[in-house]
Amino acid sequence: MNPETVLSSLIPHRTPVNDTASAFAPSNIALCKYWGKRQESLKLPVTGSLSVSLGPLGTRMDIVRADRDGLWINEQEQQRKSNVASRFFSFLNLLRPEGCYLQCHSTNTVPTGAGLASSASAFAATVRAMDQLFAWELPDRNLSILARIGSGSACRSIFHGFVEWQAGTREDGLDSFATPLEANWPEFRIGLLTVSSAPKPVGSTEGMRRTMETAPLYRAWPDQVARDLPRIREAVLNRDFPTLGSTAEQNAMSMHATMIAAWPPVIYWQPESLAVLHRVRELRESGTEVYVTMDAGPNVKLLFLSQEEKALLQEFPALHVVTPFPGA
Amino acid sequence: MNPETVLSSLIPHRTPVNDTASAFAPSNIALCKYWGKRQESLKLPVTGSLSVSLGPLGTRMDIVRADRDGLWINEQEQQRKSNVASRFFSFLNLLRPEGCYLQCHSTNTVPTGAGLASSASAFAATVRAMDQLFAWELPDRNLSILARIGSGSACRSIFHGFVEWQAGTREDGLDSFATPLEANWPEFRIGLLTVSSAPKPVGSTEGMRRTMETAPLYRAWPDQVARDLPRIREAVLNRDFPTLGSTAEQNAMSMHATMIAAWPPVIYWQPESLAVLHRVRELRESGTEVYVTMDAGPNVKLLFLSQEEKALLQEFPALHVVTPFPGA
Repeated sequence: MNPETVLSSLIPHRTPVNDTASAFAPSNIALCKYWGKRQESLKLPVTGSLSVSLGPLGTRMDIVRADRDGLWINEQEQQRKSNVASRFFSFLNLLRPEGCYLQCHSTNTVPTGAGLASSASAFAATVRAMDQLFAWELPDRNLSILARIGSGSACRSIFHGFVEWQAGTREDGLDSFATPLEANWPEFRIGLLTVSSAPKPVGSTEGMRRTMETAPLYRAWPDQVARDLPRIREAVLNRDFPTLGSTAEQNAMSMHATMIAAWPPVIYWQPESLAVLHRVRELRESGTEVYVTMDAGPNVKLLFLSQEEKALLQEFPALHVVTPFPGA
Repeated sequence: MNPETVLSSLIPHRTPVNDTASAFAPSNIALCKYWGKRQESLKLPVTGSLSVSLGPLGTRMDIVRADRDGLWINEQEQQRKSNVASRFFSFLNLLRPEGCYLQCHSTNTVPTGAGLASSASAFAATVRAMDQLFAWELPDRNLSILARIGSGSACRSIFHGFVEWQAGTREDGLDSFATPLEANWPEFRIGLLTVSSAPKPVGSTEGMRRTMETAPLYRAWPDQVARDLPRIREAVLNRDFPTLGSTAEQNAMSMHATMIAAWPPVIYWQPESLAVLHRVRELRESGTEVYVTMDAGPNVKLLFLSQEEKALLQEFPALHVVTPFPGA
């Protein structure tokens, strides 16, 4: 099924109503990872996943109708033929009529180089802004589906807090969307640790594809998620931090394991990443309740509760601490 | 089935014939790894494996009848209650009668700290020396089974060259032994790179056990071996180095991947190991035909042919180059 057909069933019309729109969407970090697509063009995942959104850290998208298209990221105009701009406008073309030109300013509030994928928050913010521009007033579930078609994990960035993306089974993907969990956890912290700015060997889409195609171990990944996802969901609902942290860490390590088992190996870890992994193990052995998660890059994210914040800042002075429930 | 019962069917008698015996067995490095036991006491493996023996590098075992037991490793007497001595004499007790005391001198010819497991060559040399002491004149196949009961991969160290250990299916393990491949490859090289002498987080037996018990990804490991083992065997027989190297590297990375996916994670890699892995990838991208393998430790072994030796010594001045077919 192609995205155009699916889109037509989701959006009521393609006539712009407003001249400007502005929306924010948070970044999110998966505690149970999305790794592998069962269908490429609709970004349908092999498994479900569960993330936490990063509160005020994310992307603000300002869209203005104009006489030509333009994309600015953090005030830098992007070449129309660049990968990032052509992917972005291909997505907009699914939503707008011909002749509707848009100037889009994307502003990230995430610390530069912290290893946070900005495409999730950018596509989620774009979908929210387009909803305003066209006055669709779509329910969040449909915004989540639209965002997913832009960039898989963007479907989770439609929501704040803990968010679960259900894989769904339909070919048109209309049952593959995110839902927020009814959970507030003011003590929950995420520490962003930029350990290396070495260029990534491969992008995450290619990393996913290569892993699925060449790593026999990937066959057991759905089993891993089938075990981890309900465990993490329950741990969130019960505020059981050791279960949440240990399951999230094993899930992230297992995702990296499937990549390491691919050919050629996809090793996002840098020596500095590994040094942090070993240090965190030592800290845990000496009683600090801290766990890690990692995405398709060398940086490490620490998971901990507020009571460990001081000790961890002492251990890792460059740690950027995020409070996902800041209003709480 | 217990080792005593199995041993009784393998050795003709327990009466020492000679007063001294001396034997050598080579170390071996697996190209398709042994990772996971289906039975602990007989060291029966989940899958088959394939290794290359390291020619003159290994263990010489000198055994002398005496009035008390003693074990010396590289001329250092071992405490009778140390782990290494009690494991060693528990094994000897399976083979000798009561009242038969032995002084055993184990001398390793492997470079110290090069990350070569000495237990495989030590148990294989011990079995060969015991065969002399008792004048059993057992066929190599039976020596291989005896050595396996001492230390799984020791069954491969009974032979030189490329060696395959078939997993077998019998409960008594009498069909789980190694056989040499009919293959000579004078250009084949192994480069030992000691990258770190950091202490191992866990021993390999515990690492294996923890992986099997806690890593869902381990379920796919037998599939990995089912694919890799025949590929590596064919590549050896056809002298197809790129297939051999790439399959061996993916096999080793996948073994480490199963450990990384365990809980708590078993990460033998040190930052320096990872730096070598990345450097080898770069070298390969620039045309040097070199692959890696790694065992349950931080050190890296390079696989290459003689034509690359000079370039690799320049790149890694500390490389210890082994020629598995020195007589060829």
